[in-house]
Amino acid sequence: MAAITNSHGPVPNGVGPESNIDVLIIGAGPAGLEIFDSLGFGDRAWKEANHMIEICMWNPGQDGVIRRSDRIPDTIVGLSRFQQIVLHQGRIEKFFLDNIKKYSKDSIKVERGVLPASLSIDESKLDHEDSYPVTVELQHLSEEESTPKQQMSGSKVADGLFRSTLNYEDDEHELIQHGSRAGQRETVHARYVLGCDGARSWTRGQLGFELQGEATDFIWGVMDIIPITDFPDIRMRCAIHSAEHGSLMVIPREKKLVRLYIQLKEVTPDATGRADRSKITPDLIFSAAKRILQPYKLEYEYCDWWTAYQIGQRVGTDFSSHNRIFLAGDAVHTHSPKAGQGMNVSMQDTFNLGWKIALVLKGIAKPGILSTYASERRQVAQDLIDFDHRFSRLFSGRPAKDVMDAEGVSMEEFKDAFLKGNMFASGLSVEYGASTLVANNASSQSLATGLPVGKRFNSFKVLNQADARPWHFQERLKADGRFRVVLFAGQILEAGQKARVDKFCARLDADDSFLRQLVEGKTPEVPIDSVVEVLTIHSSRRTDIELLRDFPEILHPFDKSTGWDYDKIFVDDESYHEGCGDAYKSYGVDRERGCVVVVRPDQYVAWVGEVDDFDGLQRYFEGCLRLRRESAAPKTG
Amino acid sequence: MAAITNSHGPVPNGVGPESNIDVLIIGAGPAGLEIFDSLGFGDRAWKEANHMIEICMWNPGQDGVIRRSDRIPDTIVGLSRFQQIVLHQGRIEKFFLDNIKKYSKDSIKVERGVLPASLSIDESKLDHEDSYPVTVELQHLSEEESTPKQQMSGSKVADGLFRSTLNYEDDEHELIQHGSRAGQRETVHARYVLGCDGARSWTRGQLGFELQGEATDFIWGVMDIIPITDFPDIRMRCAIHSAEHGSLMVIPREKKLVRLYIQLKEVTPDATGRADRSKITPDLIFSAAKRILQPYKLEYEYCDWWTAYQIGQRVGTDFSSHNRIFLAGDAVHTHSPKAGQGMNVSMQDTFNLGWKIALVLKGIAKPGILSTYASERRQVAQDLIDFDHRFSRLFSGRPAKDVMDAEGVSMEEFKDAFLKGNMFASGLSVEYGASTLVANNASSQSLATGLPVGKRFNSFKVLNQADARPWHFQERLKADGRFRVVLFAGQILEAGQKARVDKFCARLDADDSFLRQLVEGKTPEVPIDSVVEVLTIHSSRRTDIELLRDFPEILHPFDKSTGWDYDKIFVDDESYHEGCGDAYKSYGVDRERGCVVVVRPDQYVAWVGEVDDFDGLQRYFEGCLRLRRESAAPKTG
Repeated sequence: MAAITNSHGPVPNGVGPESNIDVLIIGAGPAGLEIFDSLGFGDRAWKEANHMIEICMWNPGQDGVIRRSDRIPDTIVGLSRFQQIVLHQGRIEKFFLDNIKKYSKDSIKVERGVLPASLSIDESKLDHEDSYPVTVELQHLSEEESTPKQQMSGSKVADGLFRSTLNYEDDEHELIQHGSRAGQRETVHARYVLGCDGARSWTRGQLGFELQGEATDFIWGVMDIIPITDFPDIRMRCAIHSAEHGSLMVIPREKKLVRLYIQLKEVTPDATGRADRSKITPDLIFSAAKRILQPYKLEYEYCDWWTAYQIGQRVGTDFSSHNRIFLAGDAVHTHSPKAGQGMNVSMQDTFNLGWKIALVLKGIAKPGILSTYASERRQVAQDLIDFDHRFSRLFSGRPAKDVMDAEGVSMEEFKDAFLKGNMFASGLSVEYGASTLVANNASSQSLATGLPVGKRFNSFKVLNQADARPWHFQERLKADGRFRVVLFAGQILEAGQKARVDKFCARLDADDSFLRQLVEGKTPEVPIDSVVEVLTIHSSRRTDIELLRDFPEILHPFDKSTGWDYDKIFVDDESYHEGCGDAYKSYGVDRERGCVVVVRPDQYVAWVGEVDDFDGLQRYFEGCLRLRRESAAPKTG
Repeated sequence: MAAITNSHGPVPNGVGPESNIDVLIIGAGPAGLEIFDSLGFGDRAWKEANHMIEICMWNPGQDGVIRRSDRIPDTIVGLSRFQQIVLHQGRIEKFFLDNIKKYSKDSIKVERGVLPASLSIDESKLDHEDSYPVTVELQHLSEEESTPKQQMSGSKVADGLFRSTLNYEDDEHELIQHGSRAGQRETVHARYVLGCDGARSWTRGQLGFELQGEATDFIWGVMDIIPITDFPDIRMRCAIHSAEHGSLMVIPREKKLVRLYIQLKEVTPDATGRADRSKITPDLIFSAAKRILQPYKLEYEYCDWWTAYQIGQRVGTDFSSHNRIFLAGDAVHTHSPKAGQGMNVSMQDTFNLGWKIALVLKGIAKPGILSTYASERRQVAQDLIDFDHRFSRLFSGRPAKDVMDAEGVSMEEFKDAFLKGNMFASGLSVEYGASTLVANNASSQSLATGLPVGKRFNSFKVLNQADARPWHFQERLKADGRFRVVLFAGQILEAGQKARVDKFCARLDADDSFLRQLVEGKTPEVPIDSVVEVLTIHSSRRTDIELLRDFPEILHPFDKSTGWDYDKIFVDDESYHEGCGDAYKSYGVDRERGCVVVVRPDQYVAWVGEVDDFDGLQRYFEGCLRLRRESAAPKTG
């Protein structure tokens, strides 16, 4: 296990090593390229990874021989500015570690070789904001004790590392502390604890929570090899159903590697419903792959890693205890790995939770927002498990011989499921329900039909007004914990619209505005945009506009050392080199009147309203953030 | 100065520290985004730099007040897949140092604080390939001695660093050794020496070579500041001619910085033609900027750096001595820095030379190719100096009051010069003449009208046949010292064309082919593509092709450990997400018959011929590379 801790140093009167920390994270593992990009390292993944462009479907013909029956794009065209990529998980962890080092300096520690020994909550402290109600005892292991062994964990029945000799660039983890306090016990008092400790989560066990659902009879093996084969689509993502020998998925990876997911029809669960792991060897898995792929030949000299698992779909009964201890990832939902959802959905769990805890700890947001973690992510987990249940059955089933073969799997249905899986992986099918963080203002949705409230803010290109550089607007929504108010200012040179925008800005700039009442923004030293950043996209011609002349200063704040801010006002206009993003049209916003949209720190659309509806905007932030005057009286600007 | 040395360790019988090295580089300084990309770090520059999109021209109206008279794109639309960017030179040096570390391990040393003391050539050794004919004595300085002082060097008359407090990521230079042997002398015997030691080049002085040309009366100041100004185009590249107070160029940079080039009309050269540096202060420069920019206000709190220089255009009489000692960059051409050519052209000098020396040292290429450095780069330097002479006069001159004002500068002419400057910076206007490295086969040029022999290989998108991923073809031309043979295979499913391609491949694969006669390729352990890589672009439909079935193995070589190579065959076809590159059309190649193109390691087109003209291709490589059998008899395949 790994613990990511944010330490405040030892408590003076503690007995033995004892400390107060803000957040203890038990377990770790890292998806979504938009998320990586918002964290600043999407380009690193994009550059190193293999890109999957096309899915080839292979199925038996009347003669029982497999042949390519269909080609479909692996990412739905137009869905995102990114496409599906695959890269070693270790590399992605490296990107995260680099980011932790870059931004946290020494305030965050990543430790390996530490096991939690006990966990307790002092309920009397729950209502005290400055308290540390969760106590965890930690046991530091020696290096030998903490080296992973082959083990039967969760749905995994066997795995192993052959001889990984592939080199990746700059592959060192100097941030990780290992075994320096072997044998010691340590007591930690935490404000919050996050359990990401996998399908057999220790944290979940301590809380007495359960996963509900059950295992299937389907057993699959996985191998990462450099294949030597005459199978023509080995560098495509392939879903292969053989007539009699089971199914196989091909996932081409970086450095000539290919991951094969191989159905093991010869291995079946025993009376208890569990598969016998002693039977499963790389030779057994590879023999199954060769049978499925015949008449094509398949060999390898290099195997990087292998494992086997029994498919099961389970979802947790509870996602949180008192909104002080949270579970995420496999600790609250397990499913088959093939659909590529594991890392994607798990990472989105913690991406949903991280900024909420951070804003509450800093005193910026109200603690009540933490309950939205369970309400938002439990629904996603349930949808995923339902999808995976259907997908596994379709993939592990025998292909239908013809339309009369009701027990066989319809290839049309399988293809549909594949496409739906991509929507999951992209995060675009996720829609969060109304809460303190997502406004229930359906009546305003018509103002921005391309920005559904509760869904992720989609990206189109706009130009920076000051220097004409094109940006995917999402690139300006960095995951730095800030909310954004996006002012679609419309035709700012039209007098009536200019008056509306000026009035909106006067309210925004007034003393009782949420922007000036924010707790972080109370001293002049803290920039006005440190908690909520206001970004503007107008629809006038770029060259007709002078930034300083046409926009109120609150939209491009002045700093006495560095002058005006030139990175906050954008325009929906033609670029020289990259065409026009048609942002207003794509976002479904009226080019004349515009609108106002609130984006959460995780890029989800939180509120939509008219430029005139400053009061509604103020109420949104009063609902979730702490303001100095809790209910500033609306005044006319 | 910095020395980049490639050490073979000390000579056993030498007196004092004495060593034999392949290449000694005296002086260092780092452009061209295509070059960065081919070296593998274009993306780092692209991400960190400020992008310049538009140039705004400001000129006085009839009332003498400056106003914006024109906007033009800063990079000609369609010229390249990149646009103009600006970034601190220190960052670019950091990217180079990182690359040196990544690829050379410990075989390349970068030293600061080392001065050359003497240089001699032993002419008796020139004809011996294994000899070290150049001897250089080096003096190691203490840290104090090697800290740069304000000095009058070359055309520079004054400069200084105010208080640079900007932080860049990962800004450490652990590769550089500094002052560890202070006070010591060292004797180095080198096969080759490269002098990149600036306008007052010590190396050039030792050789007795001169720069020809002279200084002008134009004195300019430069300041890197974070401006506080109401000038509306401060984040655009601007060329501003005031009516009476001189000219100013605005170059917006990263981290809110702006570089201002400021004409100093008040400073004039003395009787000797030199400016008096004692007069030039940041206050004087900034006052000039304020005068030029009025009625707009300009202030700053933060200045990162400043300097001043006197414009002069000079070009070296000789670029090399015996093709053993070479001069590059400011050591052989000086000009005004404003046009952004300094780093671009200087880097292209060394990019031209580096691979040639490397291939000769490895025994792959014939030493005769080294003479092409002077012939190719001297012409570029002369063109640059001619351009700069015209551009400086246009920029430093008084703007014409009207069309009758013959002494004033025509703004149309100035704009034209600006556009030409961008062609220079991009390297696209460079055309190398015929030599052992550039074929004189004008008659074949009609086979690929978009790939002029002697010019840089332009880039269009193609798809990898095996996985359908779109690539800018230039991305496959990495600067790893390899030549490429690009086989435009045409309509490979058409029987006649298939026969032509098969015949070409049989010749390529035969024992007497240049590919099998290459010195590096003589042992089975060395991959067949280690010196010359064959890349194929065909024009059939991607989905009609099976890579293993339709293309001879020499085009996708087999390796017993890793199988076939899936990264060598591309197709000019529609992609799912990024449109169609129309590569055949854009390269001007016939879709049916195709052609063959040789690309040098620096991405210049070297030879064009028919698919049938294997003999011509063979002769090209016989002319510049060492083959085991110098003149393999052509045989019919």
